[in-house]
Amino acid sequence: MNLIDKHPSTIVHGEDPFNAEPTLGRLGRSFLTPGEFFYARNHASAPEVDPERYRLVVSGLVGESLELSLDDVRGFAKSEVTAVLQCAGNRRDELIEVASMPGETPWKAGAIGNARWAGTPLREVLLAAGIGDEARHVAFVGLDEVEGESGGFNYGGSIPTEKALGPEVLLAYEMNGEPLAPGHGFPLRVVVPGYIGARSVKWVSRIELRRTPSDNHYQANEYRLLPPGAGTNDLSGGFALGETPVNAVICEPESGETLPMGSVTVRGYATAGGGRRIEWVDVSADGGKSWVQAELVEGRDEPWAWSLWEASLDLEQGKHEIVVRAFDSSAVTQPSTAAEVWNPGGYANNSWHRVGVNVG
Amino acid sequence: MNLIDKHPSTIVHGEDPFNAEPTLGRLGRSFLTPGEFFYARNHASAPEVDPERYRLVVSGLVGESLELSLDDVRGFAKSEVTAVLQCAGNRRDELIEVASMPGETPWKAGAIGNARWAGTPLREVLLAAGIGDEARHVAFVGLDEVEGESGGFNYGGSIPTEKALGPEVLLAYEMNGEPLAPGHGFPLRVVVPGYIGARSVKWVSRIELRRTPSDNHYQANEYRLLPPGAGTNDLSGGFALGETPVNAVICEPESGETLPMGSVTVRGYATAGGGRRIEWVDVSADGGKSWVQAELVEGRDEPWAWSLWEASLDLEQGKHEIVVRAFDSSAVTQPSTAAEVWNPGGYANNSWHRVGVNVG
Repeated sequence: MNLIDKHPSTIVHGEDPFNAEPTLGRLGRSFLTPGEFFYARNHASAPEVDPERYRLVVSGLVGESLELSLDDVRGFAKSEVTAVLQCAGNRRDELIEVASMPGETPWKAGAIGNARWAGTPLREVLLAAGIGDEARHVAFVGLDEVEGESGGFNYGGSIPTEKALGPEVLLAYEMNGEPLAPGHGFPLRVVVPGYIGARSVKWVSRIELRRTPSDNHYQANEYRLLPPGAGTNDLSGGFALGETPVNAVICEPESGETLPMGSVTVRGYATAGGGRRIEWVDVSADGGKSWVQAELVEGRDEPWAWSLWEASLDLEQGKHEIVVRAFDSSAVTQPSTAAEVWNPGGYANNSWHRVGVNVG
Repeated sequence: MNLIDKHPSTIVHGEDPFNAEPTLGRLGRSFLTPGEFFYARNHASAPEVDPERYRLVVSGLVGESLELSLDDVRGFAKSEVTAVLQCAGNRRDELIEVASMPGETPWKAGAIGNARWAGTPLREVLLAAGIGDEARHVAFVGLDEVEGESGGFNYGGSIPTEKALGPEVLLAYEMNGEPLAPGHGFPLRVVVPGYIGARSVKWVSRIELRRTPSDNHYQANEYRLLPPGAGTNDLSGGFALGETPVNAVICEPESGETLPMGSVTVRGYATAGGGRRIEWVDVSADGGKSWVQAELVEGRDEPWAWSLWEASLDLEQGKHEIVVRAFDSSAVTQPSTAAEVWNPGGYANNSWHRVGVNVG
């Protein structure tokens, strides 16, 4: 069932499970992404949850297991964070152009959004349960049921305990000042800033403290970065994705646009991931031989948010390719071509984003 | 004065201040880098310090200023960490080939070393002094005196308080199980794993807790990553370097070597920086079109150490360029060319390392 209140311009990759992203022109227009434009990545139909009957169970390597009602969760002090969430498959379409990936959704660069989340810090719930000495990972299970080859199972994933104790990790019940929409995880979802979206489990109903990462299919087998020579079923060489790498995307102009001669305003987003900061964004119209430094117009002081940027380029008549790249606070920048970051699962594409335009 | 017990093969960039690095063939041979092969980066003559008269002063935004003797510092519980230190200018020679940088030392890829450090965790000393609510940065001052244009001053730098509280940050008095050598900071140096070497202040004599970063020349004006279009005196657009980016270097074979036909063993180091992990290392003999995954032979389980790796390539007769790249745990990899990471100060070069060899 599709519970997203989506905008007519939305690019729909699948109706059920619902998978969709906004156009880039729309996405780049606001620092906080409205819910109807916020990408949806689902592996199952969105569940309808009765908030009165809803319970969150916290178990595993804890001092005392908890079973919390929604009111219990809301009973902790409310905390807020502005955070970007990004699908690990964001910009996969550019990797597919390098080499095809049958069955993988060809996400464009809109599988990302930035929102003001409010809820209970996960750490408060974990501390209330008591964290066992041997706990190293915190696993989440959602109420969405995936149809697997050997029967149904619930979606899940995990993060290291060290990350789970960060004050930025929330059990969120509000998005942009409104109650969470059904399609975005009502009544409660995890928000793990700086990590791939897959770990921000929606409709979360169980939290388990463990010695090892979750053995859920989506932690153990999917969302892994694999070396370029590995097969998608060869899990020995790669690793389960966590922190996202630095990334930058041109939202405006869009690819293929025809523009008048003269000064062109280029706008987009940039995100560092992992709590690092975007330090600067460069734009080039000559394939990276020379760069114009963009202005960071919003988000610079919010450690978990994206940065919106803009730059002006003077373009002569003809065809041009505009490219963008960012540097983050660990002196990391982006590889120049999609071929350099190609991987069998089609994840974490952070190569220079390129937009072709016609001027004149 | 040169207090380094250096090996005859050492590449010396300057005698006083002493600046030197080992050959790569020697560097890659051991997981722990012996002191006589460990790079030296100095901005002044190395001071000779009388350990009896030595004092460490802790002041600024603290509950109570401290003046500690060496015995006082050793009185805290001893802690150990295996950590790589890397000069921010490591591999600058490749950036100089892109565009010259008058006056900058042309470091090759040996301005890095990995050692077992032992000492007192900085956090214990800070907690003993009491950390003021407004403290955001911890500044260090060494006993080495730099000749500046307007008189002498002591070398210094700073790190964020959050990093300073990490258990891995040491006030080290031992290196590889021996007392610290005079040239490596005797009797006490800071070791900041995951950060550029410039913050690991040698001969440390003062620690100051501050609201803002150190205003020492080497924090405020040098060791900054600047956008490619900026002048070296334009400090507005860049940022003070802290965490190092993922990097990988071929130590063996060395550039220009002639090798017999057949299987060639390639060896080197890789480092992720910032506490991230090296996940895998790729080696290519066709310019990055195809990759062989290297074996990580040592260092994988030490979060602050480098990883040593090796791979076998079958090479036909003729000239070959071997390249290496690594991926770290935040899904970050390296840009392919030095031109892409060129910056006015010549710092943080982490482009694919390339070695040309002759086979036959």
